[in-house]
Amino acid sequence: MSNFSIGVDLGGTNLRIAAVNQQGDLMEKVTLGTRVALGKDHVIREMCDAIRVLAVKYRDAGSLQGIGVGMPGIIDMKTGMLRESPNLPGWAESPVQAEIERLLGTRVILENDANVAALGEKWLGAAKDVDDMIMLTLGTGVGGGIVLEGRIWHGMTGMAGEFGHMTVEPEGTPCGCGNRGCVEQYASATAVVRMAKEAIASGRAPALATAANSDPEFNAKAVYNLAIQGDEEARKIFGRVGRALGICIANLVNAFNLPMYVVGGGVASAWEAFSPFVFEELRQRCLVYAATAPRSLLSDRQGASAQVESEGPTRTIITRALLGSDAGLYGAAQLPMTGRR
Amino acid sequence: MSNFSIGVDLGGTNLRIAAVNQQGDLMEKVTLGTRVALGKDHVIREMCDAIRVLAVKYRDAGSLQGIGVGMPGIIDMKTGMLRESPNLPGWAESPVQAEIERLLGTRVILENDANVAALGEKWLGAAKDVDDMIMLTLGTGVGGGIVLEGRIWHGMTGMAGEFGHMTVEPEGTPCGCGNRGCVEQYASATAVVRMAKEAIASGRAPALATAANSDPEFNAKAVYNLAIQGDEEARKIFGRVGRALGICIANLVNAFNLPMYVVGGGVASAWEAFSPFVFEELRQRCLVYAATAPRSLLSDRQGASAQVESEGPTRTIITRALLGSDAGLYGAAQLPMTGRR
Repeated sequence: MSNFSIGVDLGGTNLRIAAVNQQGDLMEKVTLGTRVALGKDHVIREMCDAIRVLAVKYRDAGSLQGIGVGMPGIIDMKTGMLRESPNLPGWAESPVQAEIERLLGTRVILENDANVAALGEKWLGAAKDVDDMIMLTLGTGVGGGIVLEGRIWHGMTGMAGEFGHMTVEPEGTPCGCGNRGCVEQYASATAVVRMAKEAIASGRAPALATAANSDPEFNAKAVYNLAIQGDEEARKIFGRVGRALGICIANLVNAFNLPMYVVGGGVASAWEAFSPFVFEELRQRCLVYAATAPRSLLSDRQGASAQVESEGPTRTIITRALLGSDAGLYGAAQLPMTGRR
Repeated sequence: MSNFSIGVDLGGTNLRIAAVNQQGDLMEKVTLGTRVALGKDHVIREMCDAIRVLAVKYRDAGSLQGIGVGMPGIIDMKTGMLRESPNLPGWAESPVQAEIERLLGTRVILENDANVAALGEKWLGAAKDVDDMIMLTLGTGVGGGIVLEGRIWHGMTGMAGEFGHMTVEPEGTPCGCGNRGCVEQYASATAVVRMAKEAIASGRAPALATAANSDPEFNAKAVYNLAIQGDEEARKIFGRVGRALGICIANLVNAFNLPMYVVGGGVASAWEAFSPFVFEELRQRCLVYAATAPRSLLSDRQGASAQVESEGPTRTIITRALLGSDAGLYGAAQLPMTGRR
């Protein structure tokens, strides 16, 4: 017998529901497609059906602590309203939390997807030995979550952690947010593909051009494959990813002085290609990092758990996420266990 | 009868000691020169003598809650060691807190000067209606302090709030910290004078040249005086101050999502000259600001108290500090009153 909770990762593509016990063991995970085209009510009904099935199935295994749901967008934590959600068209300004609660007849906790990913890595992943951490999620866009003293830091209106729109190049590439030179314009999967297309258009990237022509779904992963095969133009692109991310993390380290910064999301798979540039920027640009970097360079390059001493951590660790796409699912499951948001 | 405490602002130039009651009323302030040349022991002895005089004088006025000392440099909060302090040569790596406590025979609380300035503005100044705020202090350098949930956020090693060394121009002016394009290279008093000298050297700033030649103590204030008289080159310099500060604050707003960012220090006297550029950058660069800016432009320009509603603040206010050079003194006095660091 072990208490458990149900976590949901409601994304624009996949809808995943898991039962997780208090030790962080995955009891069962259900993966469904998010049938966005059928509308919000349909998606929420499918989700609630799956939650109910899991709740009944594990009824005798332990006591259900609650239900946590991570989803993209800006969530008003006081009312449970989804304010904006570019990946779920038609969902904006709807009382998603209340709708789920009505169908299930019980309380649920709604949370932004980047925040639950951070919480998941803090609970069971790269940051499990520290209380304070920042996570950057490099996906289609660049998201972020902040955990301070074990709790998600929401900020005044739930918008804290918008690292993807921090400026790293004042006169750089225009961003949909209205700014120029946002991190997201260099360190997202979208940006990797854009930079590859720019290189192809310039005529100086024959290998990228061949890859793009032969692959109708030419994506960031294809650019990474060329980079690890040694293609110079593909490598330069990940150099730009690393430099932008390095400036951003240097600024965060100088501002927050936390023990741990975790890089996750799909683009983090290319860690080997871009992380050397991240550390180069950090060493040059960040006096707080200079004073607190791990003594061993090895831990820079391969990632390491924070050096937690009896007095608490004293070293700044920048590392890749460990839980992959499950971080958000675990984080969502943990929301009801902590009894605090 | 009112409880009171004694706050100390120990700077590289002035040593100021004040008795402040729990309502924040200044009972008495003593200003001494910091006789750095006579050495650390002498300065600490003079400080302790002045503290003792105030403690005895107000013995019957109320109960002394404790003593708080703000000073420049990096302080190890666990041991009370002063790690580094560029403005107090010879003080680095000394157990300043223990030395003061030994002379006074009582506990004292040591804190970084930028942090106590933030705490002072939060207690009695521009940020008194909010629990979460950031202060940027534009002086010889650029310092910063973060207050979260009413308490100073120190970070892992007491180095949080190094906003002066956040990158705003990746290929910009080299900084003593090893980086290029730090905020400090554009928004400090030192930077204002450097930019003025660069303009003079270029031959395109006759009014600045005349001012610099006639005034052996040519400083940021002189550049400001020309700016408000309409001199184009002097105005451009404050344009650069405002743009650098605007990028920095935009990044902080996107990361922290706090209700209040306060700009203090000597350069804040030139608020009228540089703040329009700060707001221009914020409006262009910061999606969190775009979603939370005060509806009235007036409050942008003239500063305003945060719009605190029953649900808590929902608007992002950027404003100038209200307490001037007393912010740190009040903040230091508050340290023992809050009973927490």
